[in-house]
Amino acid sequence: MAEKSKILIIGGTGYIGKFIVEASAKSEHQTFLLIREKTVSDPAKAPLVEKFKNLGVTLVYGDLYDHESLVKAIKQVDVVISAVGHAQLPDQVKIIAAIKEAGTVKRFFPSEFGNDVDRVHAVEPAKTAFAIKAQIRRTVEAEGIPYTYVSSNFFAGYFLPNLSQPGATAPPREKVVILGDGNPKAIFNKEEDIGTYTIKAVDDPRTLNKVLYLRPPGNIYSFNDLVSLWEKKIGKTLERVYVPEEQVLKNIEEAPVPVNVILSIGHSVFVKGDHTNFEIEPSFGVEASELYPDVKYTTVDEFLDQFV
Amino acid sequence: MAEKSKILIIGGTGYIGKFIVEASAKSEHQTFLLIREKTVSDPAKAPLVEKFKNLGVTLVYGDLYDHESLVKAIKQVDVVISAVGHAQLPDQVKIIAAIKEAGTVKRFFPSEFGNDVDRVHAVEPAKTAFAIKAQIRRTVEAEGIPYTYVSSNFFAGYFLPNLSQPGATAPPREKVVILGDGNPKAIFNKEEDIGTYTIKAVDDPRTLNKVLYLRPPGNIYSFNDLVSLWEKKIGKTLERVYVPEEQVLKNIEEAPVPVNVILSIGHSVFVKGDHTNFEIEPSFGVEASELYPDVKYTTVDEFLDQFV
Repeated sequence: MAEKSKILIIGGTGYIGKFIVEASAKSEHQTFLLIREKTVSDPAKAPLVEKFKNLGVTLVYGDLYDHESLVKAIKQVDVVISAVGHAQLPDQVKIIAAIKEAGTVKRFFPSEFGNDVDRVHAVEPAKTAFAIKAQIRRTVEAEGIPYTYVSSNFFAGYFLPNLSQPGATAPPREKVVILGDGNPKAIFNKEEDIGTYTIKAVDDPRTLNKVLYLRPPGNIYSFNDLVSLWEKKIGKTLERVYVPEEQVLKNIEEAPVPVNVILSIGHSVFVKGDHTNFEIEPSFGVEASELYPDVKYTTVDEFLDQFV
Repeated sequence: MAEKSKILIIGGTGYIGKFIVEASAKSEHQTFLLIREKTVSDPAKAPLVEKFKNLGVTLVYGDLYDHESLVKAIKQVDVVISAVGHAQLPDQVKIIAAIKEAGTVKRFFPSEFGNDVDRVHAVEPAKTAFAIKAQIRRTVEAEGIPYTYVSSNFFAGYFLPNLSQPGATAPPREKVVILGDGNPKAIFNKEEDIGTYTIKAVDDPRTLNKVLYLRPPGNIYSFNDLVSLWEKKIGKTLERVYVPEEQVLKNIEEAPVPVNVILSIGHSVFVKGDHTNFEIEPSFGVEASELYPDVKYTTVDEFLDQFV
């Protein structure tokens, strides 16, 4: 048996990164976290950093914007996973340059963890956000770096606690606003499961140079089905307010930030159906719950129980 | 009646900053938040940004590292509150330079919100962290900028949920480790109350060029008293393990980051008593719960109830 690849995670203290670090540390992969010295001595970050260290994660001091430190960090590992946040997406060209210089990386996972950005029908501002990720894909491919793109669709912990009702802090109990006709199917995956599936893919030849789609059958719901599930849980029927696409587009244009950001992502997923409006073909993709049937993922049904 | 000062908050999406923004927005002060354009279009930040906008906060695009944007933002307001995190503390000299150039700021609150950094008996690495804040105080004073330093002692939400037991995610129910003899008194204030008291001080002549100490009587506890309070709540006696100072100092030297950071702050507060080992003298300080007896702060006793 070959030894498991060593993994470096960049952006590992961010929203989704921390789940990837935890999943990696709990696997048999040696796990390295790129972190700035300033971050590690920040008392506010101490509980998270301590947790990582207790899990056996090796801290590697460095910075996305310090080429030498980046190359040095990357040379210690086999696989690099980027989970950098929105603001740093374009700066992943610096990771790509460092991977090229190191010359030893067997697989790179750029920061994705959402829609398949090559298969979206988005309007601004989501359009540009997706395009930045697509451009990073093209650069990875042009440089000949082996890759996996993880298309994990929606974060359950971000979209389900309020059923995607902007500004709400709990799921609705009277009225629910639905973008479009509520029929396209969206996918909601729990953050911990996204970490688990990502790490499963690291040494898997089936995911090499492919998109890994997270479409576990228990997490695929149209908005209408999601509302019905919630109604059943609370034993109550909600008033469903449908917003036609034309009105959604008008609202996006007129909404201030950040509502326009959220709305335009909602338009892509709930109106255009961009999570599920294409088939996964073996030429470009594989599905995670099929590859790893042993993973006991949290279903949407289970996830919603906590809010009843 | 004079109009209430306009407030600009820098670092307002951070750990304590978000509570200060909310308190300001809920007051009669016009509230401005310095924010980077990249941050505002980050979906991960959207719920917080949307909350602020719904509260009537004005977003001002700019960056601590973009002098012109900083001066422009500061010129719109009367009072500047910095709540930048650990990594950016030294870079507050950039805020000071911009305040000087703007020339119109009536009061500056540098990022403090902890120990009174002029009255600490800390060892490294806490020593240097406190020294950086003290150095910023000296620069503010040398530049003749009117100020208030908010010494809010411990964040309740950070230290109480595990009774300061490193690595624990709940208060102890069997054994509790106590640094020193457990007798010096520490102070634990809820983050929302820190926001409230800070905003109360903004236009108050009594807090001008003074340290505002948050020492509400219901929040002052020795470690021994804190454990006794917790024991009473859970109806159980804990084993108390006392670590003598000599051993605490040895542990700090040998501990990896970030445990050494937390331990050295614990040493300052729980062993040396740096929250309460001095009297507040009118020449340099005032106490918040005395100045604002109308604020109904959350006591430690009330705060702990949620964990029983």
